[in-house]
Amino acid sequence: MTHRTNHQIRLAARPSGLPTDANWQHTTEPVAEPSEGGVLVKTLALSLDPAMRGWMNEGKSYIPPVGIGEVMRAGGVGEVVASANPKFEPGDIVSAGIGVQEYALFAADQIKRAGLVKIDLRMGSLTQWLNVLGMPGMTGYFGLMDIGQPKAGETVVVSGAAGAVGQTVGQLARIKGCKVVGIAGGPAKCEWVVKELGFDACIDYKAGPVKDGLKEHCPDGVDIYFDNVGGDILDTVLTRINRKARIIICGAISQYNATGAVQGPKNYLSLLVNRARMEGMVVFDYADRYGLAIAELAGYLKDGRMTSREDVVQGLQNFPETLNKLFRGENFGKLVLQVAKA
Amino acid sequence: MTHRTNHQIRLAARPSGLPTDANWQHTTEPVAEPSEGGVLVKTLALSLDPAMRGWMNEGKSYIPPVGIGEVMRAGGVGEVVASANPKFEPGDIVSAGIGVQEYALFAADQIKRAGLVKIDLRMGSLTQWLNVLGMPGMTGYFGLMDIGQPKAGETVVVSGAAGAVGQTVGQLARIKGCKVVGIAGGPAKCEWVVKELGFDACIDYKAGPVKDGLKEHCPDGVDIYFDNVGGDILDTVLTRINRKARIIICGAISQYNATGAVQGPKNYLSLLVNRARMEGMVVFDYADRYGLAIAELAGYLKDGRMTSREDVVQGLQNFPETLNKLFRGENFGKLVLQVAKA
Repeated sequence: MTHRTNHQIRLAARPSGLPTDANWQHTTEPVAEPSEGGVLVKTLALSLDPAMRGWMNEGKSYIPPVGIGEVMRAGGVGEVVASANPKFEPGDIVSAGIGVQEYALFAADQIKRAGLVKIDLRMGSLTQWLNVLGMPGMTGYFGLMDIGQPKAGETVVVSGAAGAVGQTVGQLARIKGCKVVGIAGGPAKCEWVVKELGFDACIDYKAGPVKDGLKEHCPDGVDIYFDNVGGDILDTVLTRINRKARIIICGAISQYNATGAVQGPKNYLSLLVNRARMEGMVVFDYADRYGLAIAELAGYLKDGRMTSREDVVQGLQNFPETLNKLFRGENFGKLVLQVAKA
Repeated sequence: MTHRTNHQIRLAARPSGLPTDANWQHTTEPVAEPSEGGVLVKTLALSLDPAMRGWMNEGKSYIPPVGIGEVMRAGGVGEVVASANPKFEPGDIVSAGIGVQEYALFAADQIKRAGLVKIDLRMGSLTQWLNVLGMPGMTGYFGLMDIGQPKAGETVVVSGAAGAVGQTVGQLARIKGCKVVGIAGGPAKCEWVVKELGFDACIDYKAGPVKDGLKEHCPDGVDIYFDNVGGDILDTVLTRINRKARIIICGAISQYNATGAVQGPKNYLSLLVNRARMEGMVVFDYADRYGLAIAELAGYLKDGRMTSREDVVQGLQNFPETLNKLFRGENFGKLVLQVAKA
């Protein structure tokens, strides 16, 4: 039996605006061995997502907030290093709600709740299992397919196009026969989105008015808008939607650190004029269909119709600063924190 | 052949904010006889609707704006006084897009476009044909049934509850087995909504915070919100919606005379948390099913399960001032301008 030490990052206080060091507490504790039916997982990589900011807030949401003093919630991939459960053995690579820590010990009754499942690295790389084959991919898949219901020939616009959810949405919409226009920040992201992901166009929101880009690249209007950002961009797209358009409200990263009121879409009456709809979604609702979506997306990765990009930062201790990269739009691709090598 | 004079009210200038006398022009012209296939209708009563404010604005909407110098658009009921069309004869009572004028002359090719149809006063009174059996009723019917998709036992909230659309929505939701809570301004309207229309409760938005009323009367949350008003009330209801709630965006009377930006719903991310949807509708899309809805609603009027209230103001010349009553919330029931007796 090895004596292991677990470094953890806990929520110390609820942030107002962008999180600072004062919101985090770094702790160390010895790692226990799994009890009957339990599993010990060594963290390999963690998924850093905009949704984490919401989990830090008090108040009713789609899941309870992280409690003060608790290890920060995070999905991730890891390696089973000790098992008292016949379904898992050391060396298995798994995906689970791991938390921001070096080791996660799952009691028998926590395994299902944490979504602990073995993953197959022949279907995608470790970091792709946090991206296209992970929660962002599932979010993009079910948001686009179930809420958006794309039809070939329609125009799909996606914001955060170079981000984790955006890259899956845009590529999938292209595969489904849609015209796809991304919105992203900066020429490098826009170039990648068009050249590598095969979007028809990408609007650089930092380079000029999004309105002009939409006029140029969506001359026939917008049938589906997959919104990851909210704020002014949502408002601008609302002015260009078509009749019966579908707007998927997946997130609003521009608003998550607002210290005042969230900016509501002042052009929402465009929904009335265009008989359009705006609908929210939470990926967990689709858990019983993840397997089908993963199989489809892994197929696209394998046959080359889909690719992915992850922005990998090293070191558990860098979690606080790395998370903030997301909110400053500094990540290029799905943001992943690598904690250890397999 | 009678020599008739037509008094008309035309749009003189586009308003900024609440319309004033400067926006209207009163004109008089002789009435011509109908040409081959045409019909001459004497206006009996006009429907005054919040949507009229939108028709006065420049810009793309679900129908073209009323042109400067044109007779103001209005739906109404009238009596055929001369006909060169075998389908209509003098004495027929009809409903149509009449305009704010004493007589409307329809050429053969305008009859269909204007929606000129005979109405049956055994199904409902003249003013009910502008209310429950007219556009407001159709709007309430299809908005609630098609977009809202009410299920028995659900909680339905409707704003503008004593208004034209609201009264149909709430009564219909009650008939469909829902719990119904109205929002209206002042104790008289609220009392009428509960006692005469049979709503379970009505929140007087002028008497205190709508939030408190929703807490009290919708302890199980809101499944369907039929929004006629927008603004703060929409934002408040958004904080109380249930998972998979449906919000019907029918109008936003609180915002129609805003001279600045429309107030966007800052709580729209509640759609995400609750996997809810907000959808706009325009009644004209359902024109091919009006007949079925009218038959159903007329049945409820006949068997007493539904009633209606119209606020009738006399005299074409009072149109400008009467329209503004709507935006000040001074009408009690469907606002109708009676122009002549049958």
